[in-house]
Amino acid sequence: MRIEVNCSRNYPIIIAKGCLKDVKKYINDNRKIMIISDDMVPQAYWESLKSQFKNCDIKIVKHGENAKSFEIYEDCLRTLLKLNYSRHDLIIALGGGVVGDLAGFVAATYKRGMDFINIPTTTLSQIDSSIGGKVAINVDGIKNCVGAFYQPSLVLIDPEVLKTLSKRHYNNGLVEAIKAGLIGDEYLFNLFEEDHLDIEQIIYRSLLVKKAIVEQDEKEEGIRKILNFGHTFGHAYESYYHLHDYYHGECVALGMMVVLDDEEIKKRLASILHKLDISTSCDANRNEILNLLLNDKKANQDMIDLIKVDKIGEAKIVNMPIKALEKYI
Amino acid sequence: MRIEVNCSRNYPIIIAKGCLKDVKKYINDNRKIMIISDDMVPQAYWESLKSQFKNCDIKIVKHGENAKSFEIYEDCLRTLLKLNYSRHDLIIALGGGVVGDLAGFVAATYKRGMDFINIPTTTLSQIDSSIGGKVAINVDGIKNCVGAFYQPSLVLIDPEVLKTLSKRHYNNGLVEAIKAGLIGDEYLFNLFEEDHLDIEQIIYRSLLVKKAIVEQDEKEEGIRKILNFGHTFGHAYESYYHLHDYYHGECVALGMMVVLDDEEIKKRLASILHKLDISTSCDANRNEILNLLLNDKKANQDMIDLIKVDKIGEAKIVNMPIKALEKYI
Repeated sequence: MRIEVNCSRNYPIIIAKGCLKDVKKYINDNRKIMIISDDMVPQAYWESLKSQFKNCDIKIVKHGENAKSFEIYEDCLRTLLKLNYSRHDLIIALGGGVVGDLAGFVAATYKRGMDFINIPTTTLSQIDSSIGGKVAINVDGIKNCVGAFYQPSLVLIDPEVLKTLSKRHYNNGLVEAIKAGLIGDEYLFNLFEEDHLDIEQIIYRSLLVKKAIVEQDEKEEGIRKILNFGHTFGHAYESYYHLHDYYHGECVALGMMVVLDDEEIKKRLASILHKLDISTSCDANRNEILNLLLNDKKANQDMIDLIKVDKIGEAKIVNMPIKALEKYI
Repeated sequence: MRIEVNCSRNYPIIIAKGCLKDVKKYINDNRKIMIISDDMVPQAYWESLKSQFKNCDIKIVKHGENAKSFEIYEDCLRTLLKLNYSRHDLIIALGGGVVGDLAGFVAATYKRGMDFINIPTTTLSQIDSSIGGKVAINVDGIKNCVGAFYQPSLVLIDPEVLKTLSKRHYNNGLVEAIKAGLIGDEYLFNLFEEDHLDIEQIIYRSLLVKKAIVEQDEKEEGIRKILNFGHTFGHAYESYYHLHDYYHGECVALGMMVVLDDEEIKKRLASILHKLDISTSCDANRNEILNLLLNDKKANQDMIDLIKVDKIGEAKIVNMPIKALEKYI
């Protein structure tokens, strides 16, 4: 399956089982190639990738959000400098969202921008973060506050690699697909109510939803905000639980549950989440969550854009006083 | 005078005597404004600028190439974070090329890109570096190796501010205008042979040359390289003299002198440089310069693109073995 993304730079997304073994086919390898990956990605994956190229280096960073730091960012840049990479060489990200964000920001800024290919290896990154061109690192605990909009030249998605994920990690990523269904594709949402989950269809249709939105509003001036459905409260839960007790997708699930007004949709969502062993509510302290919402850097003074879904497949942006969020929790 | 630059982002350059006192007229100041400047810029300039806005902060960095470091870059970003700047707020660079490069890279990457206005205060930056969208910092002594192509939303040029420059600094910047004449505008080159230098015309016509080239090739894949006329050897001289004995423009002057084959043009250039008290030759060690050329990171393996001018106003790119550069020195 192939999706063409048309924005400031046009690029294809290729979804093909087993394509990790065949990356060479898609790439001009008559140049230096730097793979950036992390120590959670099975060694077999990056060894398989590296073995396909004659002129290939690899940088393995420690997994987790801390990889998105100035320190690791600078370290990657210095490695490229030491190995004399030019801006016509290539960086390949092989990993989840953290690796994609870090490697993408390195690619965006080394010699003012080098070629970048993303090979996401988690459900979360295959479904969501590998496309859209947002790359970034964190500073002083503030997520994604330094980065760029920088499009890859290719995204290669091999659903086979998801098999090595733990069930919890696998399901965690599916939440972004459920979100994509809720905001833009009823059929996609319905897929989650089937007995068997067709993961290729789920990835494909999720990416189509995201593509359509990103193409309209690459730099998030307006409509792209609807991708944040569930994320306003989701981010507050993430901060509250420090991503230990709940993963990103799990927090977004909690965030979607609280902002849904329609009881019927809420019931269907809860039932899907239960099937995936994902919590539909949590014990977070109400006042602390409210404080976190008030301090959210995305809020513009006293007002906030909350994304609402009252009909499956349709989202709207509602500008409201931050104080009004109280009623949801 | 006004020039419209049309590239990935369109923006105007306004050249107007005294406009520094009147910046508010050109800017939406209904937001936070961070001025980034350095301690070589007269205090009266940034005080005048700051006094025009109600919600304005200022960051003064120590002047010189060292300001283009990871350390200062991070410090600027952390300042913006602490003061809770959003991506809809504004950064104004007030200073020479170093300040423009640093502030531009901060603006390019803070929250994935905020609004950026450049107010260059040196001849070098008014004539050359303030337009074209190249922003960058240095790493481990390698110039501009981390950065972005990021266009300002406005460039404001006040030729009045040049009055406080030393004569040497002033003339140093004019070299880029002489270069612009040589590669793209015979009339501009001729202006330097007049008794009185019309600085506004010189700035205006230099920017027109650069605009035309940048619009054709924003990301320096081809034709934009002709802006590097004189810079191949110029950069080698810069490295050799560490920018102590010779400034950037002075090194470019030396670099243009050595690559000119046409004796008539060479004579005219030498005569202009003499009038400006700029050296036309130096005592650099020939072998060391050759070694620096061989190690130039812009060289692609054994070949290099050398920019040649055989007729005033016309430049061409000649791909040649690096070894062939020997004959020029």
